[in-house]
Amino acid sequence: MFPLTRRGFLTGLSVTAGGAALAACSTGESDPAATTNPMAQQESPDPAGDTPRLYDAIVPFDGEHQAGIATPAQANLNLIGFNFVDGVDRGAVSRLMTSWSEDSRRLCTGETPLGSLEPELVVAPANLTVTCGFGPRVFEVIDAVDKRPDWLRPLPEYKLDQLDEKWGQTDLVIQVCSDDPTMLSHATRHLVRSGMDYARVHWMQQGFLRADGAHTPGETPRNLFGQVDGTVNPREEEQFDEQVWIGDDTPEWMQGSTSMVLRRINMNMDTWEMLDRPSREEALGRTLDNGAPLTGENEFDEPDFEATDKFGLPVIDHQSHVFRAKPADGHPEQRILRRPYNYDIAPEPGSEQLSNSGLVFICYQKDPVTQYDPIQQRLDEADRMNEWITHIGSAVYWMPPGTSADGSTGDAYWGQRLLEA
Amino acid sequence: MFPLTRRGFLTGLSVTAGGAALAACSTGESDPAATTNPMAQQESPDPAGDTPRLYDAIVPFDGEHQAGIATPAQANLNLIGFNFVDGVDRGAVSRLMTSWSEDSRRLCTGETPLGSLEPELVVAPANLTVTCGFGPRVFEVIDAVDKRPDWLRPLPEYKLDQLDEKWGQTDLVIQVCSDDPTMLSHATRHLVRSGMDYARVHWMQQGFLRADGAHTPGETPRNLFGQVDGTVNPREEEQFDEQVWIGDDTPEWMQGSTSMVLRRINMNMDTWEMLDRPSREEALGRTLDNGAPLTGENEFDEPDFEATDKFGLPVIDHQSHVFRAKPADGHPEQRILRRPYNYDIAPEPGSEQLSNSGLVFICYQKDPVTQYDPIQQRLDEADRMNEWITHIGSAVYWMPPGTSADGSTGDAYWGQRLLEA
Repeated sequence: MFPLTRRGFLTGLSVTAGGAALAACSTGESDPAATTNPMAQQESPDPAGDTPRLYDAIVPFDGEHQAGIATPAQANLNLIGFNFVDGVDRGAVSRLMTSWSEDSRRLCTGETPLGSLEPELVVAPANLTVTCGFGPRVFEVIDAVDKRPDWLRPLPEYKLDQLDEKWGQTDLVIQVCSDDPTMLSHATRHLVRSGMDYARVHWMQQGFLRADGAHTPGETPRNLFGQVDGTVNPREEEQFDEQVWIGDDTPEWMQGSTSMVLRRINMNMDTWEMLDRPSREEALGRTLDNGAPLTGENEFDEPDFEATDKFGLPVIDHQSHVFRAKPADGHPEQRILRRPYNYDIAPEPGSEQLSNSGLVFICYQKDPVTQYDPIQQRLDEADRMNEWITHIGSAVYWMPPGTSADGSTGDAYWGQRLLEA
Repeated sequence: MFPLTRRGFLTGLSVTAGGAALAACSTGESDPAATTNPMAQQESPDPAGDTPRLYDAIVPFDGEHQAGIATPAQANLNLIGFNFVDGVDRGAVSRLMTSWSEDSRRLCTGETPLGSLEPELVVAPANLTVTCGFGPRVFEVIDAVDKRPDWLRPLPEYKLDQLDEKWGQTDLVIQVCSDDPTMLSHATRHLVRSGMDYARVHWMQQGFLRADGAHTPGETPRNLFGQVDGTVNPREEEQFDEQVWIGDDTPEWMQGSTSMVLRRINMNMDTWEMLDRPSREEALGRTLDNGAPLTGENEFDEPDFEATDKFGLPVIDHQSHVFRAKPADGHPEQRILRRPYNYDIAPEPGSEQLSNSGLVFICYQKDPVTQYDPIQQRLDEADRMNEWITHIGSAVYWMPPGTSADGSTGDAYWGQRLLEA
């Protein structure tokens, strides 16, 4: 029942653009009233989850939380790390966030942003989401270091890390996701251009998942090792409140926000493919077939870490990924929302690997230090998967709360209450 | 009527995998009989074109011509240029082609290739096609220079070319296309690995189009300048015979083959976006809205190159792309099948452009020298679009005829009759 429950909860808001937005596009004009997204509150006509994901489907931009976090992962990702140009101050950051938020609201609704002459390229948002994060340096630039969350700093160095600065921390991050790669490209281009006086691209990490939302919504995606990835994610609203959304015990400007941990993880396909299937499954602790724990039959069966085989050995190896990644006893807070994408790009000249593949591993949690770090410490120590994977990039961001076009729910643009305090 | 006609002709063969292939996958086994693809001759149950492109849709691998040429463009492209490792001879090329053809036939049918342990990654081919081409050096390696088509050589240097060897001619090319990026990645990986003893990747050019096949099959794709691209393509079978398929006046091993011209074209989004819409449309000679010629109302209206405005000036500028690209008077053979993909990758460090975007321009024709070259000569001389585009890569390939699993129609694997002569 999990997939259906998840879909009911998470994608009930996905609606189609309808005639109004399309009409606005075809003339190159946009209706200011439409920026409030009249369809945002509309329920899906088919909460049972059988509606295909049409390419004119819209994920509402505004809401208590930013879209693109609890949103079921779309097929395509552009994750863009920006660094400020010299001279950017608090006022400049506010102007950038105002402009990016307004443009994103329009793009996600299938409307042409102000100043854009490309209405034909925004007619089908295909579940476009745009999600923004602040790196540690934002709080210096806006002269508010005292407000910076304690966890908004580099993660500890893990002993197996081989980090490359080229994939490192940036001042800002924009996560653009869509089921259509042309929409993705156009939205990315628009934001890069509209932000160019304030921030420049340091890296762009592109990723993808199986584009099968149309007939298997809610199915857990697979990575390029063939493993299902994301089985233990939060699915119910209470789980999101416990694990992901920063809550009432924080200043108002933080409530509804979260953190992103970004790890770029190279996967060595060449050595992985030398393994037989039992060895692959033992390293993970789950079957490749359907992702069931080695002690169960179905993906969502609870792993039995006590079970032993006829030799008295644990069925799920204690150095398997599943065993190492589970919350420590007495620490139920050690859970995160995984939202990883596969990458597969041209091999670097001179590389020893035949492929240049891996994960743009993105996860969301209230606090990376208490939630992500202990998991990664355990994985770094003894995960069997370390034989085939290498962390090559790392960054942490604060993801501001969601927005409302008129500011009635707090912020009209990303980070408004922090930036205007 | 063009889109429907085209779909009837070109996509009538697209069928869904059905239970047999899926069952074979889930056990990791494959049914040898299925490699003849029993569904290849099956007509679409909905020739009117309303069937959604499901992710388990199959394009038959075998046929008179290779798939992936007349096939309507899928959403995602990996174009991989390979160079032979030292010591490859005719026998080795035959072994490589045998292995690649067999593996591709299985992958395209949703079956696990022999020796692959990843059945879960091939369950949904999503219209996967794999198309192979031979560069000029193949004919040297197989000691058959006398058989090399006269046109299989570098194109003339055009004066505006800024070619980078990094995107240059290779010994072989494999074009992998799918509506699903995970299938695309897995098929690419499999072929790179299975060919590693014979050939290594020199470049991989990745591209995309709007993923809206599900509701607008046959619609002409748009590039990142927002232009529809491919309006004048052949659509009817006779047009393909005239323009694309090498015919009866050639040796048997060539019949049904074609040539690929590959041009990597950088598009300068920064300067293009400074133009207003009328200037953009004048440069192209078509409207941005629906791609109609500036003298017409609909995309497929015939351009009227004689029409003048109230000042007596041509409505379609004689330096517009449409004017320069049309066949010269008395040379109806100057037509090609365009099958271009957009690219949009991370900006190169130090680049002056905000984006790194353009076209992986692929076109097919019987003879690049008499069909593609005269068009490109005229464009190079005076196409207004040259202000914003730059050709940075170039290559030419011979694309062997199609195959049949039992060899009954000529080749059981790509180039068999040439390689075994």
